[in-house]
Amino acid sequence: MWHLYHFPLCPFSRKVQLVLGEKSIAYDPITLYPWDAGEEFRRLNPAGRVPVLHDSVRNWALIDSQAICEYLEETVAERPLILGSARARAEVRRLVALFDESFFGDITGPLLHEKMRKRLVLRQSPDSKTLRETSRLLHEYLDYIDWLVDNRRWLAGEQLSLADFAAAAQISVVDYLGDMDWSDHTSAHEWYRVMKSRPSFGPLLRQKMDGLPPPKHYADVND
Amino acid sequence: MWHLYHFPLCPFSRKVQLVLGEKSIAYDPITLYPWDAGEEFRRLNPAGRVPVLHDSVRNWALIDSQAICEYLEETVAERPLILGSARARAEVRRLVALFDESFFGDITGPLLHEKMRKRLVLRQSPDSKTLRETSRLLHEYLDYIDWLVDNRRWLAGEQLSLADFAAAAQISVVDYLGDMDWSDHTSAHEWYRVMKSRPSFGPLLRQKMDGLPPPKHYADVND
Repeated sequence: MWHLYHFPLCPFSRKVQLVLGEKSIAYDPITLYPWDAGEEFRRLNPAGRVPVLHDSVRNWALIDSQAICEYLEETVAERPLILGSARARAEVRRLVALFDESFFGDITGPLLHEKMRKRLVLRQSPDSKTLRETSRLLHEYLDYIDWLVDNRRWLAGEQLSLADFAAAAQISVVDYLGDMDWSDHTSAHEWYRVMKSRPSFGPLLRQKMDGLPPPKHYADVND
Repeated sequence: MWHLYHFPLCPFSRKVQLVLGEKSIAYDPITLYPWDAGEEFRRLNPAGRVPVLHDSVRNWALIDSQAICEYLEETVAERPLILGSARARAEVRRLVALFDESFFGDITGPLLHEKMRKRLVLRQSPDSKTLRETSRLLHEYLDYIDWLVDNRRWLAGEQLSLADFAAAAQISVVDYLGDMDWSDHTSAHEWYRVMKSRPSFGPLLRQKMDGLPPPKHYADVND
């Protein structure tokens, strides 16, 4: 049986949950906040962070969201998500890295620090300059998503792929934190509505973090 | 013909150069500093960063170091580097991510900022508190490399893999900047000497950055 160590607003855990859902793989979620990762968890993952997918029967663990997704892709045939020619697969992986690294570094990471960590752990107010800068950068990424879905059917090409789920996972966290602004991004918004209405998105829309409620529209698949 | 956009101290470009060398793939290097990436380069890679592997004949580009490595692994049979069972491959990818993300974020990234960017672009002195913290964290990673090579033949297991090259690429940059300290890390040091003496390492040891010379021992494969 798979156990997924995650916390509700971790975008990388969300990416893995979406892949598990798309591939119909059963798992038990175990919530672990980054500020609670102790020695026991570090024995499982020396890097000390989620997601970790642990096989409790054989007692071994898959670590790092992209290593987990590649493993699931190699071992579960249902719903391939890194697909097509080697070049097409490289395009999927380029976009996954763009959202996992650049989007996270520019937007999701700073917002989680300002709005989650400062509120729940540090008891500080968010820094308005940082929030303005993430908002500015968010529009640049949304311009790029507009361009991608205006020129392709899905982000990486003609087929739904891991790139769509990596992007939607990051955006879902920004949306939970109340920072999505879809104005002037009709194409990107339509793409996200379609992603949000997939059954694999259900668990993400139901997850709540204590002390940090999402805005009302968050779980509405039509919004 | 492949053209590799890189700069001499980019650890991710170094990882790709090592893989190109191991797989005997010919390429022309093109130096592009992060502070010189203009509009033309951004049309090639919207993320605006190296490495980019550009096919000048067919005019398309591979972007993101891990997407490039996975592509080369899928298309060039010589010297497989993500190898073994799905579980073994997941272990290779876990360690690649550990060095590409955690080691880079904790050590190589801050050192490049303090010692390269501040010296060449910002004309500032490095911050001694940051240097002390990277030095402390470096010993933790070297402890972990000691443990890995004491318990396995190579970092990810019985075979040389992309994990070894990802780790050595990061360490080679730290070494160039004069910040390697191998004291009390005999096993890790021996492993690095072996990596450094591979022919694929040659181009890395010959690369110099203007205004930022490496320490004398840097290119000595016995040191």
